[in-house]
Amino acid sequence: MIAELLSVGTELLLGEIVDTNSAFLAADLARRGVDILWSQRVGDNLGRVEAALTAALGRSDVVVMCGGLGPTDDDLTREAISRVVGETPSVDGELEQVLRERFMGYGMRAFPEKNLKQAWLIPSAEALPNPQGTAPGWFVRTTVGSKAKWMIALPGPPRELKPMWLNEAVPRLELPPAALYSKTFKTHNIGESTVAERLGTLTDGANPSVATYAKRDGVQVRVAAKADTPKAAKAKAAEVESKVRGLIQDKLWGEDNDELAAVVLGRLGAQGQTLATMESLTGGLLGDLLTSVAGASAAYEGGVIAYNAQQKAAFGVPEPLLAAYGAVSSEAALAMAKAATTHFSSEYGLATTGVAGPETSEEKPVGELHLAVFRRSDGSSKHRSMQLPPLERNWVRERAAFAALSLLWAFLDA
Amino acid sequence: MIAELLSVGTELLLGEIVDTNSAFLAADLARRGVDILWSQRVGDNLGRVEAALTAALGRSDVVVMCGGLGPTDDDLTREAISRVVGETPSVDGELEQVLRERFMGYGMRAFPEKNLKQAWLIPSAEALPNPQGTAPGWFVRTTVGSKAKWMIALPGPPRELKPMWLNEAVPRLELPPAALYSKTFKTHNIGESTVAERLGTLTDGANPSVATYAKRDGVQVRVAAKADTPKAAKAKAAEVESKVRGLIQDKLWGEDNDELAAVVLGRLGAQGQTLATMESLTGGLLGDLLTSVAGASAAYEGGVIAYNAQQKAAFGVPEPLLAAYGAVSSEAALAMAKAATTHFSSEYGLATTGVAGPETSEEKPVGELHLAVFRRSDGSSKHRSMQLPPLERNWVRERAAFAALSLLWAFLDA
Repeated sequence: MIAELLSVGTELLLGEIVDTNSAFLAADLARRGVDILWSQRVGDNLGRVEAALTAALGRSDVVVMCGGLGPTDDDLTREAISRVVGETPSVDGELEQVLRERFMGYGMRAFPEKNLKQAWLIPSAEALPNPQGTAPGWFVRTTVGSKAKWMIALPGPPRELKPMWLNEAVPRLELPPAALYSKTFKTHNIGESTVAERLGTLTDGANPSVATYAKRDGVQVRVAAKADTPKAAKAKAAEVESKVRGLIQDKLWGEDNDELAAVVLGRLGAQGQTLATMESLTGGLLGDLLTSVAGASAAYEGGVIAYNAQQKAAFGVPEPLLAAYGAVSSEAALAMAKAATTHFSSEYGLATTGVAGPETSEEKPVGELHLAVFRRSDGSSKHRSMQLPPLERNWVRERAAFAALSLLWAFLDA
Repeated sequence: MIAELLSVGTELLLGEIVDTNSAFLAADLARRGVDILWSQRVGDNLGRVEAALTAALGRSDVVVMCGGLGPTDDDLTREAISRVVGETPSVDGELEQVLRERFMGYGMRAFPEKNLKQAWLIPSAEALPNPQGTAPGWFVRTTVGSKAKWMIALPGPPRELKPMWLNEAVPRLELPPAALYSKTFKTHNIGESTVAERLGTLTDGANPSVATYAKRDGVQVRVAAKADTPKAAKAKAAEVESKVRGLIQDKLWGEDNDELAAVVLGRLGAQGQTLATMESLTGGLLGDLLTSVAGASAAYEGGVIAYNAQQKAAFGVPEPLLAAYGAVSSEAALAMAKAATTHFSSEYGLATTGVAGPETSEEKPVGELHLAVFRRSDGSSKHRSMQLPPLERNWVRERAAFAALSLLWAFLDA
C-alpha cells in the first residue's frame, strides 16, 4: 500500500508555520509498513487542491490530507474532495447537533453560522469525530479505474490531527499487520559522535538499520527492521538490538516513548519519595517539564523560582555563601537544592543556576551552568557544572533543565 | 514569478526529520514578492525526482530543490537535473580542487573518492560555493518552450542551505524589485470565528489580503499587500489595515513580532514595577514564559510553584479560605496572587489554579481555571474564572498561562 500526504494551507506556502504534521504521519505510516513516495503542499486554492488530489489519487492508494477543514471560505478541503468524487456536500443533521453542542460547551453565546460548513458531509464520506476541536474529519472510500482508493481529511492543528489519525483513521484503513519493528534507545551525558564511534559498523546495515538522532533530552539510537510479519521483524532486529544495547548500556535512561521527567517522577513515586525545585536559570521550565506529566503531584511538591540573588537569600541561600561564591556557582546550586527541601518538606531538592544570556552575569560567561541535587534524609548531594556553547538563550535554558533531570536520574539510580 | 519547492530525501518521507527548510525558503520568497503555489517532497528515487522536477518546471518559473547533494548513491538531485536538461555531468577540475582542500582542512587522512560526485557540473549549471559544507549547490538556467526557467539545488542541512540561498542563489535570480508588506495584529479574549465575523468581507480581498490565525497567545489577523516597492506595498495595505485595526482595537495587545510575556514585562519595566507569580495549574510554565524573555530579571522577581493545597497554605494562602472554597477557586487564586507579592516584595502578583487533567480535582471538572492579579500598593485586584473544554492536559496548562498574562496585561492597561 502506497500513501501520499497532501498538506493544504497558504500559511504553509508562506512559511508561517512549519509542517510538523507530515513528519508525524510519515513516521507513523512507516511504522505500519506503509510507504510514502510523494508528498505535496498546496495553498488555499480550490483548483490547485483539486489538481493535487487528482494527481495523488492517480499514483497512490491512500491520500492523507491535512488542514483546510476550518469554518472559513479559505478552507477548501471538503470542496475539493467533493469535486473529485463528483458529489455535493450538504449539512448532516447529526454533525450539526454535535457542533452546536460543542459551541455551547465552549460557553459561546451564539453559534457562528459560518461554522455550519463543519457539519457538511457527502455520501462517500464518513465523519471522523474530533473530541479536540470543532472540525470532524472525513474518511472517503472511492475507486479510480477498478482500484480501491482512500482519502482521509484531517484537521491542521496537531493536537486534533494526532488522536483523529490514531483513533479514527488508522482503524478504518484496516492495514495488514505492520511489519516494521523498531526500538529506540535514549541516552544522556554522551555526544552523538561518541555514540556513533561506539556503534562502529553497526550503522552501515540497511535491515536492520541503526541510526542516531540528537534530541533535546539526549542522543537516541534507533534500531529498525522490516519483515513479513511483526514477529519476524522483531526477530530480525534482535541480534543487532542486543549489541547496540550492550554498547550504550551505561548511558541509557529510557526507551521508545519514555520521557525523562516522567521516568524521574516514576522512580520517586516507586520509592514513595517527594521532590521540590529551586530554579534560577531555568525560571520555571524545570517545574513545567515535571508538571507536564499527568499525575506529577504524587511526587512533585512544588518549587521556587528565585530569579535574582536577593530572592535566593530570601528563600534560604546563606548570604555569606552568595557573597563568597556568587549566585552562579556550584555552592549556590547546592544551597538552593537544600533550601528547596526545607521549604517544601520534600526528600529531594533539585536546583539550577547559571547564565542564559544574552548578557553575562557576575562576570560569568553565557552558557555557564550549575546544577545540584540534595537528599534530606542523609544529607547527601551531587552537583554538576557545565559550560555550554553560548548559543540562543532558550536553548541554554532547555539544555539546563534536561541536564538537571538527568542529574537527578543518575542520583536516584546510584 | 512563481516558485516551487522540491525537497528530496527518503528521511523526510519517513518522518525522521521535520522539513524546516521549506518554511524558511517560503517565508523568504514571500518577503521578496515571489509566490509559491505548490511544494513537493519525494524520496531518493531517480525516476520520481525527475517526474517531480518535470511537473514543477511545467507550472512554475523557479524550482528550488533541497537535499540530495550528498556523496552517496542515494543522493540523486544532480542526476535528475542532468536528465531533465539532457546533459551529462562530469568532474569539474576547479571544484575537485576545492573539495580535496576542504577535506584536508577537516583533518581527514584520505579523500573518499565517493565524494568526487560533489565536484560534478553540467554545462547549464553554475556551482554555488558552500563555505559551511562540502557540497556546492547548482544554479541552472534552462527554458521550457520559450519560457526561461531556473532550477536551484541547495544542500539539505539548514546551516548550509540558508547562507547559500541568501548569498549565492538570490542574487543570481535577479528578482524584480518587489515588495510584500504585512502587518500582524495580535488579539486576545476573542474567538477566531468572532474575529472573522467582525472582519466581514475584508477577508475576501487578494491584494491586500486579510487572514486570521488561531495561535496559542490569541487570534492573529494578518494584512498583506504586494506592490513594486516597499513604500507602494505599504500604501496599498493602508486603508484595509486601518479598517482592520478599528474593528479589533478593543481586543488588541500587540503587533508583528510582539510576544505577550515581553509586552507585559515591558509595561512593568516602564512603570519601574516588579512582578512575582504563584502557580499551581501551570506548574512553572508561567515563570518559564516570562523568563524566556531576555532581560526578564529587570521586572520579574520570581515565583512559587505550590503544587498542592498543603504547599499553598505553607506559602501563605489562609487554611480557612482553602477549607471553605477549595484550592481550585477564585478566592484561592486571589490569595495566591497576594501571597506572591508578600514573599517576593513585588508590586504585582499573578496566580493560576485549576484542573489540568486528566483526573478531576476537588470534584471540579478538567479545564476549570482561576486566575488572579493583585497590586500591593493599593490592594486592588482582578480575577478571571474560565471553563476550558476538557482537552489535553498541556493544552489546558498552556491556555491558562497565556490567559494569566492576558489578565495582567489588561490590569496594567486599565
